[in-house]
Amino acid sequence: MANQYVDLETLKFLLYKVHAVQEVLDQERYADYDEESIEMLLNSVKDFSDKELFPYFREMDENPAHFKDGEILVHPQVKKYIKAGAEMGFISGGFPYENGGMQLPAMASHASAFIQEAANNHLPGYIGLTIGAAELITHFANKELNETYVPKMLDGTWGGTMCLTEPQAGSSLSDIVTSANPDGNSYKIHGQKIFISAGDYKGAKNIIHLVLARVKGAPSGTKGISLFVVPKNRPNSNGNLTSNDVQTVTDFQKMGQRGYSTTHLFFGDKEECQGWLVGEENQGLKYMFLMMNSARIGVGRGAAAIASAAYQASLNYANERPQGRNLTSTGKKDANQEQTLIINHPDVRRMLLLQKVVTEGSQSLVFLSAKYYDLSISSAATDVREKYRLLLEIMTPVVKTYPSEMGKTAVDNGLQVLGGYGYCSDYILQQYLRDIRIFAIYEGTTGIQSQDLLGRKITMDNGKAWQLLSQEIMNSIRASMMLEPLTPYAQKLNAKLDLTQQVLRALMGFAKKGDYQRFLADATPFMEFFSNIIIGWLWLDMAREAQNALVNGSTENSTGFYESKIHAMEFYFKYELPKTTGLAEILMDNSRALTIGTDKKVFA
Amino acid sequence: MANQYVDLETLKFLLYKVHAVQEVLDQERYADYDEESIEMLLNSVKDFSDKELFPYFREMDENPAHFKDGEILVHPQVKKYIKAGAEMGFISGGFPYENGGMQLPAMASHASAFIQEAANNHLPGYIGLTIGAAELITHFANKELNETYVPKMLDGTWGGTMCLTEPQAGSSLSDIVTSANPDGNSYKIHGQKIFISAGDYKGAKNIIHLVLARVKGAPSGTKGISLFVVPKNRPNSNGNLTSNDVQTVTDFQKMGQRGYSTTHLFFGDKEECQGWLVGEENQGLKYMFLMMNSARIGVGRGAAAIASAAYQASLNYANERPQGRNLTSTGKKDANQEQTLIINHPDVRRMLLLQKVVTEGSQSLVFLSAKYYDLSISSAATDVREKYRLLLEIMTPVVKTYPSEMGKTAVDNGLQVLGGYGYCSDYILQQYLRDIRIFAIYEGTTGIQSQDLLGRKITMDNGKAWQLLSQEIMNSIRASMMLEPLTPYAQKLNAKLDLTQQVLRALMGFAKKGDYQRFLADATPFMEFFSNIIIGWLWLDMAREAQNALVNGSTENSTGFYESKIHAMEFYFKYELPKTTGLAEILMDNSRALTIGTDKKVFA
Repeated sequence: MANQYVDLETLKFLLYKVHAVQEVLDQERYADYDEESIEMLLNSVKDFSDKELFPYFREMDENPAHFKDGEILVHPQVKKYIKAGAEMGFISGGFPYENGGMQLPAMASHASAFIQEAANNHLPGYIGLTIGAAELITHFANKELNETYVPKMLDGTWGGTMCLTEPQAGSSLSDIVTSANPDGNSYKIHGQKIFISAGDYKGAKNIIHLVLARVKGAPSGTKGISLFVVPKNRPNSNGNLTSNDVQTVTDFQKMGQRGYSTTHLFFGDKEECQGWLVGEENQGLKYMFLMMNSARIGVGRGAAAIASAAYQASLNYANERPQGRNLTSTGKKDANQEQTLIINHPDVRRMLLLQKVVTEGSQSLVFLSAKYYDLSISSAATDVREKYRLLLEIMTPVVKTYPSEMGKTAVDNGLQVLGGYGYCSDYILQQYLRDIRIFAIYEGTTGIQSQDLLGRKITMDNGKAWQLLSQEIMNSIRASMMLEPLTPYAQKLNAKLDLTQQVLRALMGFAKKGDYQRFLADATPFMEFFSNIIIGWLWLDMAREAQNALVNGSTENSTGFYESKIHAMEFYFKYELPKTTGLAEILMDNSRALTIGTDKKVFA
Repeated sequence: MANQYVDLETLKFLLYKVHAVQEVLDQERYADYDEESIEMLLNSVKDFSDKELFPYFREMDENPAHFKDGEILVHPQVKKYIKAGAEMGFISGGFPYENGGMQLPAMASHASAFIQEAANNHLPGYIGLTIGAAELITHFANKELNETYVPKMLDGTWGGTMCLTEPQAGSSLSDIVTSANPDGNSYKIHGQKIFISAGDYKGAKNIIHLVLARVKGAPSGTKGISLFVVPKNRPNSNGNLTSNDVQTVTDFQKMGQRGYSTTHLFFGDKEECQGWLVGEENQGLKYMFLMMNSARIGVGRGAAAIASAAYQASLNYANERPQGRNLTSTGKKDANQEQTLIINHPDVRRMLLLQKVVTEGSQSLVFLSAKYYDLSISSAATDVREKYRLLLEIMTPVVKTYPSEMGKTAVDNGLQVLGGYGYCSDYILQQYLRDIRIFAIYEGTTGIQSQDLLGRKITMDNGKAWQLLSQEIMNSIRASMMLEPLTPYAQKLNAKLDLTQQVLRALMGFAKKGDYQRFLADATPFMEFFSNIIIGWLWLDMAREAQNALVNGSTENSTGFYESKIHAMEFYFKYELPKTTGLAEILMDNSRALTIGTDKKVFA
C-alpha cells in the first residue's frame, strides 16, 4: 500500500492495552469519552489524513513555502487544512469545555496528531502553533484577551505563533532585547524575532503572536522577560482589523519541512506595534515554560511520526524488492536460485528492526508522556496529580529527544534499505531524512534537553521525580519477572537500573564538589544512556502485554502480531540496550576532555 | 576564512610525519619525487581548488545537473574543471610513465583529490570515473584498445565511466542481463545500466563506458560476466566519431551531490552498439574487483573530505558566534557577564571534537591505505609487496566504510553546532549533510563492505591479513608504551586488541559449524566495532608523533598544534573507543534475532 504511512494496529495496541487509556478515561474530567469514541476519532483522523494530508506531502516539499514581495506564499492545501482541521476539532480538541474546547485527553489528541504528522509533517504545525499560543492565553491572560482572541483561534479563523528567538540570542533567552514600553493599557513593542514557524502566510486573516519581550527597567536575564499578545492585525470593537505594524521581512529556506514556513518578523518598525501583557510583568518565561511540556511532547511526537512513516515505506519496499540470494550451508550463494526478497537478508532485517524498535518505542514514549500529562491534571487526589506532574517533568526532555535523535538514525537506516534508490528524489525516504533533521533543534536542542534532564529534572525535589520513575520501572520489572519467557530480559533491565544509579552517583560527585561544568559536560551522552534504558523498559512492557495476550489466547490481534512485539523486544535487548555498557564507561571516566582550561590548545 | 575547507597543516603532518611518505618515495618507482615536489603539488592543488572548485560548490547544488531533451545539462564549471584538471595532471597523475602518466604515488594522488573534494565534492568525480575506466584498460585490455582510448582519456578529451548496476540486479551483480553477442572482432551490446555517475553531459566529446555484460552461453552468476569497452561514439581510423547507439534515457535527481550527474543509459536500442572485450571472456568481475581497492579508498576519501570541510565550517562558526554564558561555581549563570563564544560550551566542544577525531582519523586511514597500495606495487621484495597487498585487502572495506558512516555522524554534529542556522539553506552545513549521505551506498553499501570484511578479508589466507594488521597495531602499542603520557592509552588499545580476538573467536564458532547466515548476520555491528578500534590505533599513532615532537622540541608545527593532537586522542579514547565495549557485548550475544526462521512473525 503506497499510503501506508502509519501502523494503526500498533498505535491502538499501545493506546488501549500497553498504556491503558481507560485509566485516563476513568477520570471525571474525561467522563464524556470512552474507548469507542476514541476509536471513532482515530479512524476519522486516518480517513482525513489519507485524503487531505498524505497526497500533498511530496508536492509541498517540491514547491516550498517562500517569501515574495513581502509575503509568504504557501501551498494552497495549508488554508484548506486549517479550515477542515478546525472543523474536525483538531485545534479546540484539547481545550476545556469552558474555553470552547472538547476536553479531549492528551493521549487522544497526541494520537490524532501523530497520524496526521505521519501522513504529512508539513501541515499540522500550522495549527499546532495556534494551539500553543491559545493555551498561553487561556492559562495566563485576562478575560478580555481571552474573549478577543481565543474563539477565533480555536475555530481556525486566526493563527497563532510563539515568538522567542532573536538573532543575537539564539537559545540564550536571557539575551532577548525586544522591548515593550507601557502605553496606556497596552505596550509599544519593538524588536525582531527569527525562526518563527507558521509566522505568516498569504491570505491569513490574522496571526496572533505570543511574544517574549523586556519591559524598560526590567531585571537583566531571564527574570526580566514578559509575555505579550501581539496580533498581526488589531481587532477593533466593531470586529474590523487594523494593521499592527508586524512585518514579515523574509523567510528561512530549509533543507526539510519545506512546506512549513519559517519566518523573520519585525515588530514596530514604524513604532506602531501594540502588545498586551499576559499575566504579570517579568513572568513571561515562567509562563512559557509551564506550557513547554506539551510543546516538547509534540516535538517528540512529530519525530516519531516521521520515523514511523519512513519505517512503513522501507518495509513496503523490502517486502516487494527481490535482490540477491540467501547464503546456503556451504557459505556460498546459488546463482540458479530465484532472487529472494531483500527482507530476507539479515542485514536488511537488522535495519528494518532498528526502525521498528525506535519507531514503536518512540510512540510508546509519547503516549506514556501524554498519559502522565492527563493524570497530572485530572486525577482526583492532589498527591496523585503531583506524582504524575513529577513523572511528566522528568520524561519531557526524554520524549523530546529520543524520537528526534534516534528517529534520525532510524530514517537513515530506512534510506539505506532502498540502496541507491533511497538517495533519489523519486523515492520518499530522502524527504523523511531531510524533514526529521530539524526535530533535534526545535524547542530546545538536544544539548539543552540533556542539561535539563541531568541538571534539573534528575535532581528536582531531592531526586523525587527520578525516584518515582525508578519505582515505575521496578514495577514493570517485577511484573515481567513472573512471566517465564521474559525473566531474562527483566533481569537485564534490572541490571541497567543499577547501572544508572552507579552512573548518577559518579556524576553527582562533581556537582557536590561545586564542579558544575564537569557535572553537566557529559549531559548529552547521559541522555543517550538514560533514554536507551527508558525505551528498553517500554519494550519490556510491550512484550509483557503481548505475552499475556498469547497466554490468555486473546484474539484482539493476531498471534503473529503479538509474536512480532516480543521479537522486537528481543532485538532491542540484543542490539540497542548493550550500548549503554559503553556509554556508562564513557560517563564514569573521570577525565575532563571537554572542560579543559585555556592552558592547552584544543582546536589548533 | 570563509574558504577554509581543509586543514592543510594536519594533512601534511599526516602525510609526511605520521605516515612517513618518505618510505614510499624511497622506492625505485617513485625516484623522481621527493617531499619538496609533493609539497609543491599540494600547494598548487590548494590554489587551484580555491579558484576553480570551492567558489562553485553552492551553486552546483542550487542548479543541479538534469536531464532535458535527451541530454544532461551540467554546470559550465564541469567542462572547465575537466580541462584545467587534466592540464594539472589530475587524470594522468597516478598512471605509470609507460601509459603517459606521471607515476605519482597514490599517497600524493589521494592527498590531491582530498583537497579538491573538500573544496567541492560535485566536480572531482567527473575525472575520477575517467581514471577508473582508463585503469581497467591499461591493466587488462589489448594494445589496440589502449592506443585508441587511453591517451584521449588521460588528457581529458574523453570521459570514462564504470557501468555495473542494472535495475533488476542492484547490488547483486550475478543477476546482470546486459548481453554481448560476438560480431566480428567486436560484440553487439544490448541492455540498460542505472546509477551511472558522470554517464553523460551536454558537450562531452566522447565518453568511454566500461560495461559489465554477459556473452551468450556464459555460465550463470558472477562467473559469466565479461568486461567491455563501449564508447558513446566510435572513433574511426581517421579520427572521426560515429554514434555508437548509447542513449541517455534519463537521470536520477538526488538529495545531494546534485551537481554530479547520475544517469540511466540504454545500450543498443537500435542494435547498433558495439563493444570491445577487455581481456578474456567471463573474467570481467575479477578485473573490476582488482581495481576496486583504489575506487573504495576513493569513496572513503571523498567522505573524509566532506566531513573535513564541514568541520572547518562548524569550527569557524563556533569561533565567531557569541551565545550564552559558562556556568559559575554556584551552578548558575551570571546574566550580567558578556556572552561567551559557543566554542567554550562543553557540549559544543564535544560536537566539534567528535567532528575532529572522525575527520582526521578518516584522513589518516585514507593515507595509510594509500601507503599500503603504494608499497604493494613498488616494494622491491616480493614478500614485502605481498604483505602490503594483504594489508590493503583487509583495510579496503574499512577505509570505504568508516569515513562514510562516521562522516555522516560528524557532519550531523557539525550541523547541530549551528543550531537552527545549520538547518537553513543559507548555511553550508545542510549541503554537506545531504552530500555525504551517498558515500555509504557508493561502490558497495556498508552492509556489503561489512560482509567483505568479516566473511572474506578477516579469514583470507588463513587469517594472514588480520595477523599482519594486528602486528602493525602491536608495533604501535609497544612504541607508545614507552612514552610515559601515552602508556595508559596504549594499554587501553592493547585490551581492545584482545577483545577483538575474543569477538572473532565467538563469531568464527558459527562459521565452523556451517552456520554462515548467523556468522555474517552481525557483520555490520562487527564493522562498527572493528573500525572504531582501527581509528583508535591511528589516533594513538598521531599522538605519539606529536608527543615525540614535543619531547624533541620540534618547531615544524606549533606546540599548540601538537598538544591539540594529543588532546584529540584523549577525547577519542574517552568518548569513542569505549563504545566497542557495548558492541562486543552485542557481537558475543548468541541469540539469533536476525536470522529467525519463518515459524514466528517478525514484521507483523
